[in-house]
Amino acid sequence: MTKQFKAEIIGVGTELLLGQIANTNAQWLSEKLALLGINVYKHVVVGDNLQRVEDAFRDAQIRSDIVIVTGGLGPTDDDLTREAFRNMSNLEMEEHIPSINKIESYFKKQKSAMTPNNRKQARVFKGCSVLDNKVGMAPGMIVLYEEKVWIFLPGVPREMKQLVTDSVLPFLGKHTGSEEIIKSLVLKFIGIGESQLEHEISDIIQAQSNPTIAPLAQNDGVVIRLTAKEKSEEKANALLVQTKQQIMERVGEHLFGIDEQTLGQQVISLLNKKKMKIAAAESLTGGMFMDKLISESGASSVSRGGIVCYDVKVKEEVLGVSSKTIRAHGTVSEECALEMANNVRKKLDSTIGISFTGVAGPEEVEGKSVGTVYIGVSTNDGYHNVQEFHFFGDRNTVRGRATLKGLEIIFKYLKTIK
Amino acid sequence: MTKQFKAEIIGVGTELLLGQIANTNAQWLSEKLALLGINVYKHVVVGDNLQRVEDAFRDAQIRSDIVIVTGGLGPTDDDLTREAFRNMSNLEMEEHIPSINKIESYFKKQKSAMTPNNRKQARVFKGCSVLDNKVGMAPGMIVLYEEKVWIFLPGVPREMKQLVTDSVLPFLGKHTGSEEIIKSLVLKFIGIGESQLEHEISDIIQAQSNPTIAPLAQNDGVVIRLTAKEKSEEKANALLVQTKQQIMERVGEHLFGIDEQTLGQQVISLLNKKKMKIAAAESLTGGMFMDKLISESGASSVSRGGIVCYDVKVKEEVLGVSSKTIRAHGTVSEECALEMANNVRKKLDSTIGISFTGVAGPEEVEGKSVGTVYIGVSTNDGYHNVQEFHFFGDRNTVRGRATLKGLEIIFKYLKTIK
Repeated sequence: MTKQFKAEIIGVGTELLLGQIANTNAQWLSEKLALLGINVYKHVVVGDNLQRVEDAFRDAQIRSDIVIVTGGLGPTDDDLTREAFRNMSNLEMEEHIPSINKIESYFKKQKSAMTPNNRKQARVFKGCSVLDNKVGMAPGMIVLYEEKVWIFLPGVPREMKQLVTDSVLPFLGKHTGSEEIIKSLVLKFIGIGESQLEHEISDIIQAQSNPTIAPLAQNDGVVIRLTAKEKSEEKANALLVQTKQQIMERVGEHLFGIDEQTLGQQVISLLNKKKMKIAAAESLTGGMFMDKLISESGASSVSRGGIVCYDVKVKEEVLGVSSKTIRAHGTVSEECALEMANNVRKKLDSTIGISFTGVAGPEEVEGKSVGTVYIGVSTNDGYHNVQEFHFFGDRNTVRGRATLKGLEIIFKYLKTIK
Repeated sequence: MTKQFKAEIIGVGTELLLGQIANTNAQWLSEKLALLGINVYKHVVVGDNLQRVEDAFRDAQIRSDIVIVTGGLGPTDDDLTREAFRNMSNLEMEEHIPSINKIESYFKKQKSAMTPNNRKQARVFKGCSVLDNKVGMAPGMIVLYEEKVWIFLPGVPREMKQLVTDSVLPFLGKHTGSEEIIKSLVLKFIGIGESQLEHEISDIIQAQSNPTIAPLAQNDGVVIRLTAKEKSEEKANALLVQTKQQIMERVGEHLFGIDEQTLGQQVISLLNKKKMKIAAAESLTGGMFMDKLISESGASSVSRGGIVCYDVKVKEEVLGVSSKTIRAHGTVSEECALEMANNVRKKLDSTIGISFTGVAGPEEVEGKSVGTVYIGVSTNDGYHNVQEFHFFGDRNTVRGRATLKGLEIIFKYLKTIK
């Protein structure tokens, strides 16, 4: 049996104590540490006050083996993490040359003056491991101090996550040297609700504890996380594969991806495989569908773009929807959606056209209630289809659900065709 | 001067330490306490372990005046909040008759058997104030113990919030007997970094403590939160106005809004005032700019839409950018950006055209490095301008920063014109 490491996560920042933001960093970190088999025993949040940060650090040094500190590494006077740890540890600090170079060159590029307080961000403890921050200024640090591991990370979630993924988790994996391997696998589903999914596989969940099976509703569908503990990677993988198989037999038709795969990526990869290009005509979604697609790298090979036709004039004049159709059926209609999908496909010389028209709210439109959405699909081999939906929620919830449904429709269409 | 109360929030629950949920209870509570003028000095999260919960309670009893505990009041064996506090305090417990009646009648109504562990939820400390839980089983409790106030609440956010709103806040208002009114004001800035902003006003920050001045970097700029404490609302407001004035003299040109206002809303409101309409030609931002605008209600009166011209073919054929321009300068160029802005404005019959072209990454394009972005603006009275930027970060960071910069450019342009 290897040593059980006790970990603690300290968030530094008055904004957390004022309730301006939630401590989602602690949540995210805890999840990652759990996968490494490291037990997190405590979360603490303290404000930007030197004495209180120092006190929190002293307590942690006594009770924990691994302490992860987020926040307080920025350039301003109330960023006090370095000072508090130096007070406690008496470790020396120095300027980290690559970091100061990076900060200076950033300001040069921006053609703006670097204020003196920015130098502070490059100060690190002598002899520590400096972690390269690829999305921001302040580097992370791993400091070994009196047999305890201290890991200092910026509070900005994007920066913190990059450092943890690239540097901290590999380090901790080695440092803890656990003999049990923890492997996990995330199955991602779309077009099925959480309770329905759980209902379909409840006997499988009940019957076993390795791997554990945890369903969780997310913004872009429902995921099931399988977590296996075993003596070897092969054994853990075998357990995961076996349980995945069982689950797939019940609800496999709704699976869209594994682990970090997104629905957008899967749509892009299917379009690529079938050498197809998609174009979107967006009224209520207003660019959100194209944005979602283009946010994935590789989008340029499967889409030329789209037309945001928020106004009826753009629908008619740019997209060429006939004014007859609009007079007869309105812009929020099956007929208009179909013409939009057809026309954007032709106009942008694409294989598939998709269209979104509907009522995001706050007011109803053309007698159609808030949440009414038509999504049209048209392909260059004659397939076409318009579906009507009634989404629940405020303006941007309706727009977001319509966008996600559009991706789901395209995904399922691409899976069915040869 | 009334007493300054120190408050602490303890979350009990292993699910928090496993990262299954974030401690949003602490955030919500902190915000409410701040409004009462109660300073929260610490958040702590501990797991469902009797000794560790007890230790956390002992620490809190020493350092805090008010301790709010969420979670661990349920019926199962790992709900240990009551036991831990009894161990620490040696206070006696008893069954709360109205609560046990409520629990029994619930199970009767559900026609299901009440398992014995449910009785546990009705156990309260003798002589405490029992708080009626209107949305769940376990009542809340307010316990006075050795001059400290202990408030026990269920961990389910819906139940916790009801108890706090109905019972805890009125109690705390009286208990702290604060005669002081707390008012806050958030100033929102764009086009200036956090360190620059703080540098510009550091003497103002240093020189005063009422209102406090707290700068914070956010996704869409930097905010400064002013928080004033005074005997009356008028006095508090007067302090806020006075400090706002001081700050505005230094960095007022960068202010875009107050409190909950967004940059998108401000752009829409200025466009409305000037009776102008905007259209966007988006290459690297791929619909994100239009999406941001249309996510605000009221967008329909100031924008007809836009064209997502991700591919060169759409730039030429739909938007009408001349192939000569593209051959001579490439698509990532000042010249292309200008034609895009001009043409989308004309094509969509709008007052202002804005364009985005650049390199989001991961690979460079036409010899231009990742992060290079051109943003063009063209108006129907002949004004035009293209700016070159070099944004830092991954694909979607670059796209997001370009979108935000576009809003900033339009905002500042609209403010300068008559």
